Amino acid sequence: MREVYLDNYAASPLPPEVREAMLPFLGERFGNPSSLHGRGDAAREAVEEAREKVASLIEADPSEIIFTSNGTEANNLAIKGLAAGSRRKGKHVVISAVEHFSVLHAARTLEKQGYELDLVPVDEHGRIEIEELRSLIREDTVLVSVMLANGEVGTIQPVAEAAALAAEKGIPFHTDAVAAAAHIPIDVGKLGVQALSLSSDLLYGPQGVGALWVKKGVRLIPMLDGGVQEGGRRGGTENVAGIVGMGKAAELAKERMGERSAHLADLRDALIRGLTSRVEHLELTGHPRDRLPWNASFVVEFIEGEGMLLFLDQRGVAVSSGSACTSRALKGSHVLAAMGIPPEKAQGSILFSFGPQNSKEDVDYVLEVFPPIVERLRQMSPLYAKYLKERG
Amino acid sequence: MREVYLDNYAASPLPPEVREAMLPFLGERFGNPSSLHGRGDAAREAVEEAREKVASLIEADPSEIIFTSNGTEANNLAIKGLAAGSRRKGKHVVISAVEHFSVLHAARTLEKQGYELDLVPVDEHGRIEIEELRSLIREDTVLVSVMLANGEVGTIQPVAEAAALAAEKGIPFHTDAVAAAAHIPIDVGKLGVQALSLSSDLLYGPQGVGALWVKKGVRLIPMLDGGVQEGGRRGGTENVAGIVGMGKAAELAKERMGERSAHLADLRDALIRGLTSRVEHLELTGHPRDRLPWNASFVVEFIEGEGMLLFLDQRGVAVSSGSACTSRALKGSHVLAAMGIPPEKAQGSILFSFGPQNSKEDVDYVLEVFPPIVERLRQMSPLYAKYLKERG
Repeated sequence: MREVYLDNYAASPLPPEVREAMLPFLGERFGNPSSLHGRGDAAREAVEEAREKVASLIEADPSEIIFTSNGTEANNLAIKGLAAGSRRKGKHVVISAVEHFSVLHAARTLEKQGYELDLVPVDEHGRIEIEELRSLIREDTVLVSVMLANGEVGTIQPVAEAAALAAEKGIPFHTDAVAAAAHIPIDVGKLGVQALSLSSDLLYGPQGVGALWVKKGVRLIPMLDGGVQEGGRRGGTENVAGIVGMGKAAELAKERMGERSAHLADLRDALIRGLTSRVEHLELTGHPRDRLPWNASFVVEFIEGEGMLLFLDQRGVAVSSGSACTSRALKGSHVLAAMGIPPEKAQGSILFSFGPQNSKEDVDYVLEVFPPIVERLRQMSPLYAKYLKERG
Repeated sequence: MREVYLDNYAASPLPPEVREAMLPFLGERFGNPSSLHGRGDAAREAVEEAREKVASLIEADPSEIIFTSNGTEANNLAIKGLAAGSRRKGKHVVISAVEHFSVLHAARTLEKQGYELDLVPVDEHGRIEIEELRSLIREDTVLVSVMLANGEVGTIQPVAEAAALAAEKGIPFHTDAVAAAAHIPIDVGKLGVQALSLSSDLLYGPQGVGALWVKKGVRLIPMLDGGVQEGGRRGGTENVAGIVGMGKAAELAKERMGERSAHLADLRDALIRGLTSRVEHLELTGHPRDRLPWNASFVVEFIEGEGMLLFLDQRGVAVSSGSACTSRALKGSHVLAAMGIPPEKAQGSILFSFGPQNSKEDVDYVLEVFPPIVERLRQMSPLYAKYLKERG
């Protein structure tokens, strides 16, 4: 059976160049960057080279990059660490209503600690209402966080505009760029943000590594106390092989962004066109134009996302119903809810996330197998029977 | 030039079996354990199999293992998460004076948050004074943490005895087993502890992975909010390859513990005997008998640790002056200070940490090159000149 992997938002194959860059550090080049001998120096140089590559991807200074263990840690460190760093100025935080759980739940933890939290609402395409953000910013606001793009529905946010609002009041602005960084050119200076999160695996690098960029001069309270690694901002022995892999992935992301994004957007658009013309009661979610090139997300009425996933899996097609971090929580998506999609419709959500290894043949295969699956699930759906009956 | 690597406490080569276990997950077996399809299932099964192996090493239940990004994160999660979990009962924490920075500094962070912190003193061998611990435990104590063994000087602590004191008062007891776990048989039930930290790299597994074991029923507040990974106790996409590597390393640690420890203790004892008989004004630090089999730590009077490191590095021998996490902090060791070793003596500390790949020839080489290095450094030392003059 053909294997068509379209769950690249959850995990993706390592490009051979990334794997090759990592392997020596799982072998003869092992070492601890803190060690004061030749082997330690070599490990430290490898980490610093990776730091330069990650910084270069977002046009930042390498000294401002803190390596973490994933995007979730980067987001937690940003939200909790920046809020704690400005504690004396106030206890009010503003984030968008469609943030990843690692931002949303970190902010909820702040709420339990006595902070006030406001969520910026989004329109039907998942874009933040910029005037709402303006009205939510207060004198005691110490942090604003709006993601660069949403991985679940692909919508790209007007971050530069949002950051300018925070800058007017001198409030640190964080953006979660995890879903976007490999596909949208980023210049932290031009964006006007003070902190930005990255995850290696979403750059087509290894799992288990991430990074937080924090602009020089912005106060951040560390989460992991220990040694003086990462300039004292994140203790613990570095994951050298993983960091080297993330560095290589960042380098490739910069080099290949144009080519990759064009290829992904072609596949995405072919799937969107093909499915909307072949499947009734199917709607694209997220912004129709300002969206990540790899993201084709839909809601399919009258059936459940999990049923589609399982039937597609049986035909060799791997997809998800949204964020992998929420899939096992078995809850409705807060992103779709924020976009005004009612729960009965949101339960039929499905996300096809493309990677550079995918091809036009993968799209063709999905266009062949998916419509009959929807048809079959609809025949078993009491909701659909009810709809047909009501329509008469 | 011969390369003799004796800094295994900082980093160690991956056994081929560990590397082989990891590689498929950096290749064709990539996947996200949260994904609801075959590839996700395979990744999840691999993580759960690793969890069983890690649990087995310490005779724990797999459901009680939380994978982290290293030992530092495990220790931070234990200290901060357990203290926060018992916040309503009190705000007093007791740790030993010789804990790793990741425990000590995490506890210092609690102090800044309004907790009271007491340090249990140690004797000249670095062993905690058990009666002092008894007197420090109060009605409002919410956490006691004493490491299983100290990596810097090798001393094994009387943890079962210490944990029994905490148990009398129903206080959660955490032990940092990072330096010990590959070499001392551990049964968490028999130890009578409620939480235990591990680091993959000190099990001869990959960097970038660790684990915290927390006994069922003990309340822990997570540090990384996000998805429902690790039973909701640690959000973020798992480092699948790293976790698999840690699992394999734990399995090997259990299988080979007796053989490895005997081999390491032979090398350690040969080096201790050889150096104490060949080098004047050299003293073993830590406990003479109850010590980790891989640890040979000394202070050498009148000279500095860093000088010895650099000269040894020139002869192909890699060692450290103590904990890698403190080496770049350029501060005197808090462990040696707690043992009553004066700063002028402690500055001459040196740690030879053996790994399974080391041989008797490595010891012989050190015994050949080290005494002349000490001799040469002494000739340059104003402290030694002063000593000779005073001795007359």
